[in-house]
Amino acid sequence: MPTRLTRTAFILVLAALPSGAYAAKGKTMAEILEASTAADWRTPDPDNLLVLDLPGGRAVIELAPYFAPEHVANIRTLAREGYWNGLSINRSQDNFVVQWGDPAEDPAQAKPLGSAKAKLPAEFARAGYDKTAFHPVQDRDGWSKRAGFVQGFPAATDRKRTWLAHCYGTLGAGRGNEPDSSNGTELYVVTGQSPRQLDLNITTVGRVLQGMEHLSVLPRGTGPLGFYEKPEQRTPIVRLALASALPDAERPRLEVLRTDTATFDALVEARRNRSDDWYLHKAGHIDLCNIPISVRSPK
Amino acid sequence: MPTRLTRTAFILVLAALPSGAYAAKGKTMAEILEASTAADWRTPDPDNLLVLDLPGGRAVIELAPYFAPEHVANIRTLAREGYWNGLSINRSQDNFVVQWGDPAEDPAQAKPLGSAKAKLPAEFARAGYDKTAFHPVQDRDGWSKRAGFVQGFPAATDRKRTWLAHCYGTLGAGRGNEPDSSNGTELYVVTGQSPRQLDLNITTVGRVLQGMEHLSVLPRGTGPLGFYEKPEQRTPIVRLALASALPDAERPRLEVLRTDTATFDALVEARRNRSDDWYLHKAGHIDLCNIPISVRSPK
Repeated sequence: MPTRLTRTAFILVLAALPSGAYAAKGKTMAEILEASTAADWRTPDPDNLLVLDLPGGRAVIELAPYFAPEHVANIRTLAREGYWNGLSINRSQDNFVVQWGDPAEDPAQAKPLGSAKAKLPAEFARAGYDKTAFHPVQDRDGWSKRAGFVQGFPAATDRKRTWLAHCYGTLGAGRGNEPDSSNGTELYVVTGQSPRQLDLNITTVGRVLQGMEHLSVLPRGTGPLGFYEKPEQRTPIVRLALASALPDAERPRLEVLRTDTATFDALVEARRNRSDDWYLHKAGHIDLCNIPISVRSPK
Repeated sequence: MPTRLTRTAFILVLAALPSGAYAAKGKTMAEILEASTAADWRTPDPDNLLVLDLPGGRAVIELAPYFAPEHVANIRTLAREGYWNGLSINRSQDNFVVQWGDPAEDPAQAKPLGSAKAKLPAEFARAGYDKTAFHPVQDRDGWSKRAGFVQGFPAATDRKRTWLAHCYGTLGAGRGNEPDSSNGTELYVVTGQSPRQLDLNITTVGRVLQGMEHLSVLPRGTGPLGFYEKPEQRTPIVRLALASALPDAERPRLEVLRTDTATFDALVEARRNRSDDWYLHKAGHIDLCNIPISVRSPK
């Protein structure tokens, strides 16, 4: 452990344990990841990957057609046709969301949608509960009958429907007062305490895999709901592209930990009851949105 | 409602309802606050208020001597003697914490503590469960037997002890591996999803009342645990002072909503089941760390 950390780290040290030390205790998250195999990881479909280039850096987002097929199809079309390029992030509300889209107030000045649809059905949840697809966590979820993961996304179900939950990094499609008023042009990412009250009220479409720090640090807007009051305060979108539409050399290379494996279950347990020496009290519990899903660059 | 919000607000509109509309439904948070009386608000003791001046703006923090009397006493001494002035924020880890203190790696170069104590007992929780002081919320908390509020702070209890919970904005005292290795010089503020696994593992000492946006937007450090790799990346602390030690004109003027009133209960209910027209699904639940505690400037 670097010397300076001994003075300043305080709080959370994920150092590897000395070998031999962990026979008697649970493994740490770092140890479990270290022992993972190729089968524990998946490479996201480039047709489901959005690359968001901002002046401060790149965020990579995975779309979830399982939950919102029509929104995802429209978002793909919008991205392929460069809809967001040159638009901006228009809102950053502390402990809530950042949001981007067309800031034009006058519909006559709104950016044309190209071949994307102007109208979509609400896709707040997917009908039914597929036991095969839904990988539950044992912990009780206050917001639903059962929480877990589906295809790598945090999810919840009441057994009649299943939805992609609002956790840190969740991508959603903003809407107005009508349930079916989102078309995927206005997108938001959760940057604060999981706003699960939005679950079943709005269409969630994906999750940020990498580069959250380029969204979460954006200055908070001082207007109502965190909108920027002056156009120059907005963050320009350099490019928002679908990875599959990019030249091979420009596509992000990353792998995501599968959420339907024994390795993932072990990781959740390592977070539920921390085996790091630093932890004196084991929580014996974890909330859905406290469970991280690892992303790595392939070797 | 401003016109531009009709195009871009999407997500969460806290517009006042037309009069007459809310006889039949629950009041909104805005309406409840509007109807609050002077007795619903309290003025924090200036001996419990820290004023943190950063180049980007001011954060105001309320200390919680109820939970950590020895740490709070030491922090008061450190603040009065200007311990943190000229030191820096040395860590910003995405979706976790910012942390400040003395970045010196060499103990020989560490800033002297003045008349503050170098050693304090661990104060992870207060012994016992005082039914009079603890104002519970009805919702089940996965991390404790019961969650609620004590003196305006989010809290939890197992009935043997009561602690200040780790929510967005909670202030804690960093420690090393030994439970009693914190002395209040290293302080952190939660800037991400509530890390409740830290509860009962570290001493929590207060809560940010105002100016969280000056902490939450700090660039994330790229070193281990979000420490900045270069000294020039740190954010200097212009001043960290106790409000009671400031000239009257420089003290923050603010009032905090009491958490032991019918008004507060009504607010929690308004968050548990949103009555805003935008919400189609009422969650019927709220997590402790999703409950906001309002702060206002007195009229």
